[in-house]
Amino acid sequence: MDICRCPPRFSRYDIIKVSLSTRKLSWRGPAVAAGKVYLVGAGPGPADLLTVRGAELLRRADVVVYDRLVQFEVLALARPGAEIIYMGKPVGSHASRQQEINELLVRKAQEGKTVVRLKGGDPFLLGRGGEEAEYLHEHGIDFEVVPGVSSALAAPLSAGIPVTHREMASAVVIATGHEARQEPGRLDWGALARIDTLVFLMCVHNVARIAARLMAHGRDPKTPAALVQAAYWPHQQVVVAPLDKIAEVAEEAAIQPPATLVVGEVVRLHEKLGRREAAPLSQEAEAAGPGLSL
Amino acid sequence: MDICRCPPRFSRYDIIKVSLSTRKLSWRGPAVAAGKVYLVGAGPGPADLLTVRGAELLRRADVVVYDRLVQFEVLALARPGAEIIYMGKPVGSHASRQQEINELLVRKAQEGKTVVRLKGGDPFLLGRGGEEAEYLHEHGIDFEVVPGVSSALAAPLSAGIPVTHREMASAVVIATGHEARQEPGRLDWGALARIDTLVFLMCVHNVARIAARLMAHGRDPKTPAALVQAAYWPHQQVVVAPLDKIAEVAEEAAIQPPATLVVGEVVRLHEKLGRREAAPLSQEAEAAGPGLSL
Repeated sequence: MDICRCPPRFSRYDIIKVSLSTRKLSWRGPAVAAGKVYLVGAGPGPADLLTVRGAELLRRADVVVYDRLVQFEVLALARPGAEIIYMGKPVGSHASRQQEINELLVRKAQEGKTVVRLKGGDPFLLGRGGEEAEYLHEHGIDFEVVPGVSSALAAPLSAGIPVTHREMASAVVIATGHEARQEPGRLDWGALARIDTLVFLMCVHNVARIAARLMAHGRDPKTPAALVQAAYWPHQQVVVAPLDKIAEVAEEAAIQPPATLVVGEVVRLHEKLGRREAAPLSQEAEAAGPGLSL
Repeated sequence: MDICRCPPRFSRYDIIKVSLSTRKLSWRGPAVAAGKVYLVGAGPGPADLLTVRGAELLRRADVVVYDRLVQFEVLALARPGAEIIYMGKPVGSHASRQQEINELLVRKAQEGKTVVRLKGGDPFLLGRGGEEAEYLHEHGIDFEVVPGVSSALAAPLSAGIPVTHREMASAVVIATGHEARQEPGRLDWGALARIDTLVFLMCVHNVARIAARLMAHGRDPKTPAALVQAAYWPHQQVVVAPLDKIAEVAEEAAIQPPATLVVGEVVRLHEKLGRREAAPLSQEAEAAGPGLSL
C-alpha cells in the first residue's frame, strides 16, 4: 500500500497543493460563453447525480431547454429569471418535434443567449444528442457536449447489478427498447442474444417482444432479467425474473416508464447487492437534513 | 413549445419554488455515515466531471482509496487530514492486489471511518466494483455505490462521436480490451463484430488483435475506427483510421494508455463534431479564470 504516492504524470501538483493548504479547492470553473449551446447530460434523476460542470452551466444559463426525463430538482439549479423551456416529445411526433428543438436551439444561440440543452442521462447515448450537435454544427453555432451519468449504467447499479463482472460478464450491450417493435429493425438480435449483459432503455411496452426475440435467437429462457422502474426516483421499483417470465412479472407489478431492462447472469447479484441500494438516494438524503448548497 | 410546463409527476414543486425564491438552492445533501464504504465513480478525469454527490462524499471522507486512473485534481477535493491511499494495480498482480484492496476497505470501515473508494469512470463497469461490493456485503460492511460518468461514453463524446445515432447505430457494446489476448476468452467475437458500435476500454496494447478478430468475424475492414488517448486530460489525442489501419496509425502516433477504441459508422461524425471538442475542458477553463469553488 502506498500512502499518497500519486502517479507522476499529474503535473498540476503545485496548484492543487495551494488549494489544499487553503482548505478550499477553487478549481478554475468552466468558461460559459454567450451565443453557445451546451448539450448537457442531466444524469439519471437526482440533482446530485448531475456532474459538477453540468450544475455550474445550469446555474449560468440564460435559457434551459429540457427533455421529458429531466427531474425538476435538476431544473431548480437554474438561476431565477432563466427561461425554462419544456421540449419533451409526445409519443409519435418525434421527427417534427426534433426539428422544432433544433431550430429553437439555433435561434436562442443567435440571440446571443447562453443555452443549456438538458438531456436525461448522457447526451450522446440514445438521446439524439448527436443529431442536435450535427444541426448546430451545420448552422455554425458554437456548442459543447458535457457527458452525464447514463441510466443504462446507473439503473442497474441502483439495483445492485454491476453490468460487468470478472466471472459473469466481460461485455455489455446497450440498445433502445423501441427497436423491438420494428420488423425488420436495425438491431441484430442474433448478435445481441450472445452478449453477456444486455441493457435496454425505454422498453416498458416492449419487454415481452424483447424477451421473445432473444429467446428465439438462442438465449436461455432461464437467464435472469431485471426491470428497474424509475431508478433513483422516489417511486423506484425493481422486479426480477427469468427471461421467459419477466414480461409477465413486470405487468403484474404494473411497471411504468421510464424503465430499464437488464438481462444476464449479473442480475443474480441483485439479491446480494440490491437491498442496500433499494432506497433512492433522495430518501437517505431526506433523513440527513440540509446539506450541500450550490 | 411549452414554456415552463413541467410534467405533473414532479411533486416537489413547492420546495423548489422556495429554493428558487431565495436565489440559492439548498437541496438536502447526502447523508454520510461512518463505518461505511462509498464506491464512487470518479468519472473520466477532470474534477468537474465528477458527480455533485461524489464531490460531496469526497469532501467528507476520512479515508480515500483511489485507483490508477483517478486524476489528482479529483483527489484534491478531499479534506486536509484525510488519509489518501493509492491502490492502483501494477500490471500482472491483479488478484492479490484486489484482495489487498478488499481487506483495506473492510478494515478502515471497521475502524469506524467514512471510506470513499474512488474508481475511474463508473464503479460497476469493467472496474471490478462489483467484486468489491460483494466482498463488503460478505463481511457485513455497510456500503453505497455512486455511479459516475464512464469513459466508455465520455471518451467517444470528447472526440465528437455519439455512440448511437438514429441512422447509424441503435446499439453499442462495451468490452475490455484485455480479453483480446486470451484464447479462448470470454468474449464472443462473432457477436461483437455484428453490433453497430463497439467501445473497448484498456486496449492500447491490443488494438491490432481486436481489429484482427473483428475482421476475421466479418466486420468490414473499412469500418471507421478511432482511438482516444487520455480523454479530457491535457494530453488527449485522437487518431482515426479504417479498422484495418487503426493499429498502425495508433502506433505511429505513439498512443499511450489509457485509451479507448471506438469502432463503427458513428466514428465518421468525429470529422464534423470532433474539432469543437478537441480542447479538453481544462484548457477552456484555464482561460476563464477562477470559477466554481466547492
